[in-house]
Amino acid sequence: MTLIVRKYGGTSLGSVESIKKVARSAVNAAGQSQVIIVVSAMAGETDRLIALSGRLAATPPARELDVLMATGEQASASLLSMAIADLGHRAKSFLGGQIRITTDSNFSGARILDIDAEELTKALDDGFIAVVAGFQGVDRSGNLTTLGRGGSDTTAAALAAATSADLCEIYTDVEGIFSADPRICPDARKLKEISYDEMLEMASLGAKVLHPRAVFLASKYNVRLSVRSSFNERPGTLIIAPGENMEDVVVRGITCEKDVIAIRFIGIPDLIGAPQKIFSSINEAGIDVDLIIQNSSTDGFTDLSFTIPKKDHDQALALCRKIGGGLGAVNVESVEDLAKISIVGQGIRSSAGVASTMFASLAEVGVGIKMLATSEIKISCIIEQALADEAVRALHTAFSLDQPPDQAETFPNK
Amino acid sequence: MTLIVRKYGGTSLGSVESIKKVARSAVNAAGQSQVIIVVSAMAGETDRLIALSGRLAATPPARELDVLMATGEQASASLLSMAIADLGHRAKSFLGGQIRITTDSNFSGARILDIDAEELTKALDDGFIAVVAGFQGVDRSGNLTTLGRGGSDTTAAALAAATSADLCEIYTDVEGIFSADPRICPDARKLKEISYDEMLEMASLGAKVLHPRAVFLASKYNVRLSVRSSFNERPGTLIIAPGENMEDVVVRGITCEKDVIAIRFIGIPDLIGAPQKIFSSINEAGIDVDLIIQNSSTDGFTDLSFTIPKKDHDQALALCRKIGGGLGAVNVESVEDLAKISIVGQGIRSSAGVASTMFASLAEVGVGIKMLATSEIKISCIIEQALADEAVRALHTAFSLDQPPDQAETFPNK
Repeated sequence: MTLIVRKYGGTSLGSVESIKKVARSAVNAAGQSQVIIVVSAMAGETDRLIALSGRLAATPPARELDVLMATGEQASASLLSMAIADLGHRAKSFLGGQIRITTDSNFSGARILDIDAEELTKALDDGFIAVVAGFQGVDRSGNLTTLGRGGSDTTAAALAAATSADLCEIYTDVEGIFSADPRICPDARKLKEISYDEMLEMASLGAKVLHPRAVFLASKYNVRLSVRSSFNERPGTLIIAPGENMEDVVVRGITCEKDVIAIRFIGIPDLIGAPQKIFSSINEAGIDVDLIIQNSSTDGFTDLSFTIPKKDHDQALALCRKIGGGLGAVNVESVEDLAKISIVGQGIRSSAGVASTMFASLAEVGVGIKMLATSEIKISCIIEQALADEAVRALHTAFSLDQPPDQAETFPNK
Repeated sequence: MTLIVRKYGGTSLGSVESIKKVARSAVNAAGQSQVIIVVSAMAGETDRLIALSGRLAATPPARELDVLMATGEQASASLLSMAIADLGHRAKSFLGGQIRITTDSNFSGARILDIDAEELTKALDDGFIAVVAGFQGVDRSGNLTTLGRGGSDTTAAALAAATSADLCEIYTDVEGIFSADPRICPDARKLKEISYDEMLEMASLGAKVLHPRAVFLASKYNVRLSVRSSFNERPGTLIIAPGENMEDVVVRGITCEKDVIAIRFIGIPDLIGAPQKIFSSINEAGIDVDLIIQNSSTDGFTDLSFTIPKKDHDQALALCRKIGGGLGAVNVESVEDLAKISIVGQGIRSSAGVASTMFASLAEVGVGIKMLATSEIKISCIIEQALADEAVRALHTAFSLDQPPDQAETFPNK
């Protein structure tokens, strides 16, 4: 018999009616398959608990915050089990500790070290639908921990790996992963499938839907993931290994991140260790760096640029000016109102012409490239934010992403 | 260093302000003593959870109901720990499973089998205030269980026993145990102390304050209990073993239960096993029987009476008429509008004159005794309900319960 793991987020469990709907769907699925359901806290519950803790302590101890937060998923797991039982099907809830989801002791952001799925497998073999509280585990000392952002996605992927499930379905409030943001690009299509690596590189499109940790785990243990809507029956997007009979496209999708700031160090005297000095300070300050670009030096001086989110602008610029002074840089400046636009696809690595098609397409609509970085399956350009939407649409058309894959033109230079 | 266990009920944890108050009190106490705090769910939380489960399932599975209910105490434990930490004192929450409060598998009414207090003791020795989620445990298979009514009281008494605590303080919304119900008897005094057995016999006065299971456990392991108000600093009532330097009084208090119904079997032919037949049927029907009185038989016929709560009247009478028919009884009838009035005291067993003083006092105010039963430390009379309040006041005065114990007259016949 097949085994599927299904994960439902808070919005899919936001009311008594929603929970009953999930229960009916689970009972239907249990006719054909063994079913494990991973649940998040009911929508609004986590906010309620955080607000409550905030009224009791300025900085609640992380250990206790995890004990509090874990009640949200615990309640969801028991309530869904009740709803399933009410439909006449056996159901059993499992908390993180009950199936020994062992984590490190990094409260509020713990990493899963091990899962003992024996109890779970036993319950499934006894005909139960297993309902697992997501987001939580226990450390080796028996302390309750939570997994941080994307925790329930991670629980689902980890359980699918531990039980060798045939499929891990992530039910959410979107229909899947799209070839571009449909709000920017009306021609965007829902992808039938995408590789783990492509999904990870599609950060701005994918991360709101499915946390990168879950994708990484799924990739490591070769878990077939599916992202789909809990509000309709339409198929979602399948996230699988590239070898697995995947449609043969070069570029899977176009992503766009706005509110990007570039920090530029101009004329750093060539000294071994300068980048290390810069980025260790930036890291200590808790600033997220995205692209880093360093040109080869000329005349003993180097230029180095990197991008950061807008929110960190002031702090980062002040810090970098200080660092630049110490390094003897000619100048340190920032550029605002930028966007990062990327094409992502497993085929990019083997198609030399992809980059030139991208640059030609951008030039055609008058978009200048301010910074550029490439990886095996992604090419990213930093451009003026005002031109970003038009650039997305141009690239989407240039790579035929508005066409169903089977009708797509073969990419010329492949 | 001394060790105290404190238990706070839901009304003492009903708001952020109440939780902060409990935290301040705990930090104060921690200056002189090691402190374990056992918490109930915040007032209203249990009702909220029950309502939620009721909307999801007509009869929620008991196992899942326990998983849901346990979130209430879990949240309280983490929130109080945060509030204590916010005052600058170390605090650590413990769930039932984390200190191995092992129970049987009787969901929603589990009994504690064992506690492993090692982790708790370690935390106390490390300078933490330990905050334990009451009402919950785990069975030998790792299922979460709850202890049923009075569960947090029971957790507190059991923890006090397991840690050999010097005192177990039950904080509640009353000031202690009174010599009679102050609403009936304005002269009623708060008792400074009472024995475990007296407390158990004072059911109608005591059970609303402290669950008999907790008293029984405390008695078994010789745990000193104190019942006191969480709304003021006044000392409460100490519940201890009778040997322990207790004030030497004969009668500790007067209790009164109203809405009592008597069922009378008249003229049952003497047959071995008749009482067994009656009470096994009554028990199967789930009817709570209180007093049972059987007179010695005359002429081969026996009368047998017992009391039940008013709510079971119709069901019990119909059932007993059927049983009476089968036994060949002359008649089965019920008497309504009765009250049970009792005097309770460790000294009753050694004072022959107590009963006669009771009867004389009742006769003086014109109260006739309809049924009568005695035990070692209790004498109960069934009387007309309309006369009950006056009877309580008369007995309260007759046994000098309106006088402070040190000024009380020595009871004449002792």
